Amino acid sequence: MRSIEWHSGTVRMIDQRLLPTTFQMLECESYEEVADAIRDMAIRGAPAIGAAAAFGMALAARQSSARDRDGLLSDLRAAAERLKAARPTAVNLSWALSRLMKRAKDGGDPAAIRERLLEGAQALADEDVEINRRLGEHGAALIEDGYTILHHCNTGALATVDYGTALGVIRTAHEQGKQIHVLVDETRPRLQGARLTTWELQHLDISFTLIADNAAGHFMRSGQVDIVLVGADRVAANGDVANKIGTYKLALAAQDNGVPFYPCVPTSTVDLSLSSGDDIPIEERPAEEIIGVTYHGQPIAPDGIQVANPAFDVTPHRCVTGIVTENGIAYPPLTPNLRRMVQAST
Amino acid sequence: MRSIEWHSGTVRMIDQRLLPTTFQMLECESYEEVADAIRDMAIRGAPAIGAAAAFGMALAARQSSARDRDGLLSDLRAAAERLKAARPTAVNLSWALSRLMKRAKDGGDPAAIRERLLEGAQALADEDVEINRRLGEHGAALIEDGYTILHHCNTGALATVDYGTALGVIRTAHEQGKQIHVLVDETRPRLQGARLTTWELQHLDISFTLIADNAAGHFMRSGQVDIVLVGADRVAANGDVANKIGTYKLALAAQDNGVPFYPCVPTSTVDLSLSSGDDIPIEERPAEEIIGVTYHGQPIAPDGIQVANPAFDVTPHRCVTGIVTENGIAYPPLTPNLRRMVQAST
Repeated sequence: MRSIEWHSGTVRMIDQRLLPTTFQMLECESYEEVADAIRDMAIRGAPAIGAAAAFGMALAARQSSARDRDGLLSDLRAAAERLKAARPTAVNLSWALSRLMKRAKDGGDPAAIRERLLEGAQALADEDVEINRRLGEHGAALIEDGYTILHHCNTGALATVDYGTALGVIRTAHEQGKQIHVLVDETRPRLQGARLTTWELQHLDISFTLIADNAAGHFMRSGQVDIVLVGADRVAANGDVANKIGTYKLALAAQDNGVPFYPCVPTSTVDLSLSSGDDIPIEERPAEEIIGVTYHGQPIAPDGIQVANPAFDVTPHRCVTGIVTENGIAYPPLTPNLRRMVQAST
Repeated sequence: MRSIEWHSGTVRMIDQRLLPTTFQMLECESYEEVADAIRDMAIRGAPAIGAAAAFGMALAARQSSARDRDGLLSDLRAAAERLKAARPTAVNLSWALSRLMKRAKDGGDPAAIRERLLEGAQALADEDVEINRRLGEHGAALIEDGYTILHHCNTGALATVDYGTALGVIRTAHEQGKQIHVLVDETRPRLQGARLTTWELQHLDISFTLIADNAAGHFMRSGQVDIVLVGADRVAANGDVANKIGTYKLALAAQDNGVPFYPCVPTSTVDLSLSSGDDIPIEERPAEEIIGVTYHGQPIAPDGIQVANPAFDVTPHRCVTGIVTENGIAYPPLTPNLRRMVQAST
């Protein structure tokens, strides 16, 4: 089962807000519902929201009552704006929307465009799975038998259409018969590691231990980590990596202990238009994600306090050992080598 | 009101497990109850548990039915063992116990010893408050008007007998009329920052923002932090600092951004018997502290998973800008300068 798919004229996705307690599908009948699902993180993970946006465009084409090509393209542009605004940091969203808009413009009459958009969304989703498998093969070469892998956030089947990026590498290594163990950062504030990664690893029968994010440095300093694998939401041309908040400190701890640190991304996550990570927009999310947890049934903070909740941070490329893509691993100097990986796909 | 005090033959303390929702005192009528309160973290913070252990010894002397000096000393040694075992990392516990045991041995008959131990515990508690005020004065010289201070865990009045260490520095700067703002790390897993530090800052009317620990690096990298202040549970002779889990990654982020990083400790937290932090025992605490939170009323992880929960980490001295003590600030080279600070107290 895929985390997102087209189903009888609707976009069906696993509602990730309910895991690990409840496994339930969310059916979106309009692109507006898809945009809300992205914003509210019913679906999350850069590749998965790219696919969601693509399917959203297919829905938008069907929703439009336009009888001529220009009217339809205008409706599609409005839908793309709405979908793009759902989350600002992951570039896969605008990448998928551009691809679908181009496909629409290249299409013929409204009926043909509607068909082309659904085919285009399907193709993008199918490609994502294929890309992740290739990425997994490249990355698994880094994993030796007996390795302990530290992992942040969720980068598995749930974060993609299927299979996963960093977690796909782990999965491939496991499928190759390597004995591995995963240290799972719980990943505050939304706890994607605790809620989603543990759930996936349990189903894959891969050995793991859940830790507080704060403990990652201790495990590295005491020699218990062989490699750090993460995903990313946007990689700048120089190899700066925007990823789930906390990744930057994790990368510093890896560097301080000589532990290799590899972001694992499809090349659609690389944004060659940005020269450095300083230009990547950092999403600020609701305070409720921080203070909405309870500890022993009690609120974790007094009422009415000020809270800040940046959802991503930028890890400078000097902390990156290499970037695993579906076309191979880019090593420093990252500017030319990353560009080569991206161009191999085009 | 002090976080811990002697009250009509009992040891009375604020039950910190119930904050910020409920303010309630816990009364311990035996040293065993004090040991349990330390282990279960009804009272926590290195200086506070040092005082708790001291008052526990005063209780133990009263509980003992020994009629002769040797019998009483034997009972006290047993009590000291029990109290010391409650938590392994903070050296203040064994420091306080040694001081009280010495006082007992120097005492006369059982009645005199009982009286001397209560006086000794009271003196230790009074000294802690006095020491924190001096520490606050030294540290506040580092704080300039307009500073944003990043703070981990809780180091306030609750973590000490009164006034606080790192939070005492912040309090002194505030009392001096400096405009300051505090970024409060929530401090997973037990959330002492979210639950206790925010509560204290609110009562002190000091401006603050609560953040996920993972966000600290982002705030430093974007130039929003002027200084990092933390407490410590044990400082080795070379300046390596054991403190609440997550401090090490925080110190790395401070170093990477040129933000000064100062642990603030009474000299009783310095353990000159350990040449480096590698020899400091790291307490492993129950999994329940990690998986006992709920997110939107739901468990944060599947049932029955493996969890690791080291409560402290060690920050190497090379990441330390200076160590604030009641006798002044020790700067590198820390080995001789820290020793001088400790010896100034003896």
